[in-house]
Amino acid sequence: MGPVTVIPVPGFPEVRPGDVLSDLVAERADLADGDVVVVTQKVVSKAEGRLVPVKPDDRPSVQAVVEAEAVRVLRRRGDLLMTETRHGFVCANAGVDLSNVERGWAALLPLDPDRSARRLRDGLRARLGVQVGVIVSDTFGRTWRRGVTDVAIGCAGVAGVVDLRGTEDALGRQLVATEVCVADEIAGAAELVMGKAQGVPVVIVRGLEGSWLREASVRGEIVRPHAEDLFR
Amino acid sequence: MGPVTVIPVPGFPEVRPGDVLSDLVAERADLADGDVVVVTQKVVSKAEGRLVPVKPDDRPSVQAVVEAEAVRVLRRRGDLLMTETRHGFVCANAGVDLSNVERGWAALLPLDPDRSARRLRDGLRARLGVQVGVIVSDTFGRTWRRGVTDVAIGCAGVAGVVDLRGTEDALGRQLVATEVCVADEIAGAAELVMGKAQGVPVVIVRGLEGSWLREASVRGEIVRPHAEDLFR
Repeated sequence: MGPVTVIPVPGFPEVRPGDVLSDLVAERADLADGDVVVVTQKVVSKAEGRLVPVKPDDRPSVQAVVEAEAVRVLRRRGDLLMTETRHGFVCANAGVDLSNVERGWAALLPLDPDRSARRLRDGLRARLGVQVGVIVSDTFGRTWRRGVTDVAIGCAGVAGVVDLRGTEDALGRQLVATEVCVADEIAGAAELVMGKAQGVPVVIVRGLEGSWLREASVRGEIVRPHAEDLFR
Repeated sequence: MGPVTVIPVPGFPEVRPGDVLSDLVAERADLADGDVVVVTQKVVSKAEGRLVPVKPDDRPSVQAVVEAEAVRVLRRRGDLLMTETRHGFVCANAGVDLSNVERGWAALLPLDPDRSARRLRDGLRARLGVQVGVIVSDTFGRTWRRGVTDVAIGCAGVAGVVDLRGTEDALGRQLVATEVCVADEIAGAAELVMGKAQGVPVVIVRGLEGSWLREASVRGEIVRPHAEDLFR
């Protein structure tokens, strides 16, 4: 396997409701077949108009938005709500976010991030004639590890989870259960060049294993069904 | 920020107890200052002799090793034990692993993976005169998301968590709490070129933000203290 390269797309403009993301990406990213484009939830939400007004510096105003977005609150600690969203994500504050959003507004998660990813993928194909995968990423905390990492909340044309069960390992033994969530690893890799404060919301990941470029969705492959859940 | 490149190191040999990892890496990896070397727990454990005999295909024999390695069992489901290790990691089966290990043996986690990372970092500096970071990676599941991802269980010379609190974001607002676990994102990025069954246990990650190359440990920065824990 060759190297994988993680390439920031510079000069991305402020995104406004109604903007066509595939046009904005196509004008700035030099894409090739087999690339995966990672785009942050924030610009997707802005393009899709998933913004609601909040009173600046008024915590109850923000809290009301969070409670409306959550389908379940799993834990509370101070201002932090650990919530389940309509998509089945477990994350802080139902994904409602004020950072990198105009003052007085909060960004909500896209209604269907897999669909958002498909739309961008299809738009790039139509506009540039390239076959790429798309991941919509967001920043989630983890239960037992400090620090947040970027994960996939939507994907199109690139695998969520790759099943290596039954693949012979290097010593010829059967691997028992190695289902790798490559979409989350790709989202995390992209974050390494985003530099939160520097406004790089679009990244190209190049050189990934070709068989990973296939139909998939986060909803279908990554969101863990309640029945499998040991900790909710 | 420029691109980040994730480079597999090919031709790594089977590692045996007593092997000096820094020699094995130095002979095969073309390293430069500022690179981060990601090495899987498996080869570290083998070099450090963290192997115990088990009866092949005998689940109780393996289970006994897991129970001895765990300091606490959080959940059980069938053969799967969700455990806490002596290091404070919460992971399946106390990190005990049979894949890519000679038949009749199980690999245990290194006793102190941060120390393992420091030893490799120091060895590479002594041998090649390069200043690199080192991450020891392992493959963990996640509470609410399917599929495993590689995370850092030890590090040296590279940040665990980067604190962006107080950094101005692209719109000039204060970011409230963005502590990014770059070590886990780097470990996950490295996994993308490891190809579980193809025996690439060492990967170079090149082009990372220079300020992340500093003293750090997984124990000190990433393992979440019990007092912060909402879900144990």
